[in-house]
Amino acid sequence: MDEKDTNRLEAFSDGVFAVAITLLVLTIKIDAPPKLPDDAALTGQLLGQWPVLLAFTTSFFTIGIMWLNHHRLFKHIKRTDTGLLFINLLLLFIVVLVPIPTALLAEYLVRTDQHVGAILYNGTFLAMACCMNRLWHYASQRGRLLGKEPASQEIMTISRQYRFGPLLYLITFGLAWINTPISILFNLLLALVFAAPGLPQITLPARFIAMFRKNHIDEQR
Amino acid sequence: MDEKDTNRLEAFSDGVFAVAITLLVLTIKIDAPPKLPDDAALTGQLLGQWPVLLAFTTSFFTIGIMWLNHHRLFKHIKRTDTGLLFINLLLLFIVVLVPIPTALLAEYLVRTDQHVGAILYNGTFLAMACCMNRLWHYASQRGRLLGKEPASQEIMTISRQYRFGPLLYLITFGLAWINTPISILFNLLLALVFAAPGLPQITLPARFIAMFRKNHIDEQR
Amino acid sequence: MDEKDTNRLEAFSDGVFAVAITLLVLTIKIDAPPKLPDDAALTGQLLGQWPVLLAFTTSFFTIGIMWLNHHRLFKHIKRTDTGLLFINLLLLFIVVLVPIPTALLAEYLVRTDQHVGAILYNGTFLAMACCMNRLWHYASQRGRLLGKEPASQEIMTISRQYRFGPLLYLITFGLAWINTPISILFNLLLALVFAAPGLPQITLPARFIAMFRKNHIDEQR
Amino acid sequence: MDEKDTNRLEAFSDGVFAVAITLLVLTIKIDAPPKLPDDAALTGQLLGQWPVLLAFTTSFFTIGIMWLNHHRLFKHIKRTDTGLLFINLLLLFIVVLVPIPTALLAEYLVRTDQHVGAILYNGTFLAMACCMNRLWHYASQRGRLLGKEPASQEIMTISRQYRFGPLLYLITFGLAWINTPISILFNLLLALVFAAPGLPQITLPARFIAMFRKNHIDEQR
Repeated sequence: MDEKDTNRLEAFSDGVFAVAITLLVLTIKIDAPPKLPDDAALTGQLLGQWPVLLAFTTSFFTIGIMWLNHHRLFKHIKRTDTGLLFINLLLLFIVVLVPIPTALLAEYLVRTDQHVGAILYNGTFLAMACCMNRLWHYASQRGRLLGKEPASQEIMTISRQYRFGPLLYLITFGLAWINTPISILFNLLLALVFAAPGLPQITLPARFIAMFRKNHIDEQR
Repeated sequence: MDEKDTNRLEAFSDGVFAVAITLLVLTIKIDAPPKLPDDAALTGQLLGQWPVLLAFTTSFFTIGIMWLNHHRLFKHIKRTDTGLLFINLLLLFIVVLVPIPTALLAEYLVRTDQHVGAILYNGTFLAMACCMNRLWHYASQRGRLLGKEPASQEIMTISRQYRFGPLLYLITFGLAWINTPISILFNLLLALVFAAPGLPQITLPARFIAMFRKNHIDEQR
Repeated sequence: MDEKDTNRLEAFSDGVFAVAITLLVLTIKIDAPPKLPDDAALTGQLLGQWPVLLAFTTSFFTIGIMWLNHHRLFKHIKRTDTGLLFINLLLLFIVVLVPIPTALLAEYLVRTDQHVGAILYNGTFLAMACCMNRLWHYASQRGRLLGKEPASQEIMTISRQYRFGPLLYLITFGLAWINTPISILFNLLLALVFAAPGLPQITLPARFIAMFRKNHIDEQR
Repeated sequence: MDEKDTNRLEAFSDGVFAVAITLLVLTIKIDAPPKLPDDAALTGQLLGQWPVLLAFTTSFFTIGIMWLNHHRLFKHIKRTDTGLLFINLLLLFIVVLVPIPTALLAEYLVRTDQHVGAILYNGTFLAMACCMNRLWHYASQRGRLLGKEPASQEIMTISRQYRFGPLLYLITFGLAWINTPISILFNLLLALVFAAPGLPQITLPARFIAMFRKNHIDEQR
């Protein structure tokens, strides 16, 4: 019965992720000029659309990896409650919004002196990372919604990795105020980092980390 | 076999809810002016879009919570029949229509002397609440499509909560004729109220309620 | 393993049905005129959109009932093969196309002397009914893809009902050449007829039916 | 637990395939001219849209058959890992992009002296075929993510068929540089070829094949 709960939450979330990731394609508009350009002109026109394609690609893989992590978390989350459903809805709210800042970013990517587009874009991803962090924190805290088995190595690895999510996206958010293209590249890099399960490469001293975030998620259990 | 029935009805409904909630984003259109505005002008332009964002947010959470309640009901509904499929289709019909009144509301939110937009918007949600009420009433009446176990506390709580749904949305509908912004805030409030399972906070005298609605749903069973 | 086959075919079909039925809402466009009309003018403008709303409603319920019947068929179909997957893909192809004739119908509903819109609209539904008929015929013929249990009463009822589908939609198709509004009303009526499982009300003499269609689907088994 | 992994990957992929295949309909735009044409003019106008309809049909069936093959592969793939999730995401990335080259192809189908549209279109399908090939190669190599049972006849048939996919799509890609309509017809043909399980009709000498592709996928196991 509880199993069924999670199943349908996952199905609905999968649906929203799938539609949102596919709707991104609507941000790419190839304007048909009154007179169709010939091969050379068309090629030039398509190449000139690199900002849209870059913004689309970054958003696609960020949402895709976000789904992948959502899927990874729900392998361990066995039950739901109102709080979890609400945090999940908040996460989906941000996922659904992504096409808007993506379209905006695409327009402003070439204007290196203007940053509102990039700030909004990275702010959206920062909010997404915070929701994912909250989701896992809420579900894993004192093993609330996890299965009965004791905290496995995998759960501890996720907890450790998720503690860094918001911090890393905060850095890209900061970069957006300075340099739009670099913040986009950083976003693509983060998608790759979060594609891998666990974050073995990052071994920042624990003291440094503790300065930023205090919520030691049930590692000591 | 009956189990499979509900499963696929839920999958289709999840799909429609997921697509409808994601298509809401298409109501937000950021017009790219011929000349791209700079950071200050863009910020002003985005802040000027608060009516669209408010309408989008209200619709997103109302549909989201409606899905959540749909999910809650179908934890108890174990079988389907033609009547249930039809009521469910009617509910989905209204869910699918939501982007239209949302776009309309966004345009009229700033014109405080005009109310057709808000009336249509709240009317849509009132119709949705009535469908949910009918769905539960149809399924739970004499335990028709529920499981074999006796009416649990949870089923009685749902029955009690759902009796109020149409009444509460009737109030927002009434408010729309008077004041658009207040009716929106009331909608957001209702989304929160229905996010929680059960309605313990509302303890209106039973006599008062009985005046409005007669259908005492199988509580006495 | 075979069970899993059907499950995923159903999931994909549910997805396409759900997206197609929701995308129908994009056929409704409420043009925001440069100057927002006041309450009276807006009401008039919305009421003037009745052809779009009627076309949308008819398409929504026709697709919805088509899904319902798809769901009913797959309760009995237990296995898939390449032929079934192909017929199903053909059915989905037509389902996906529905928004186009719907938009066209909406424009031509008010021009009672022009019928191409209605012919195309009803032709689409005729093709859909033929696909459903083929799907069931293919799966049920000699019990090919059904379960092991002997032909039940329910299977025979479906076979009888589906033999009429194309015929009934052929009549609406014929009506479209003569009178657009009547053909739409007939479509809505057909949606209701096919919502019910079985077609007990129609008791045409068997000889009359045999003239139109020869494929006596494994009733004698 | 591992079973569940594949299930949700399939559900998400089904969702993306279903949305992408349905969004293709948005490439068909029937412009409503200021003055509605009458029956004869409308028929002419619709017939004049054959390039859009041909491009739409080709894309629909190519994605549909691609889904069908995805479904066929995952009947054998029992486990997932990060590599598989990533290749799958890459495949979905290309699937989601399909509406863009489809729209472009539709515009350039009538200009027989211009080929960029067709090259891009067939390039997209070539990339899709390569992803499918990689997906199966990755999963089947040394039986990595397949079930425990020994390599069945069916698995060997798939391996043999998939080795040709990229080669065949490379041929259509080559044709696009020469003749747009022929490359489209070849695409439709390929959809039919891949609809059938196995490729019995192609019996090219093994030596010829080995020249093109070296990866003998665990047939010797």
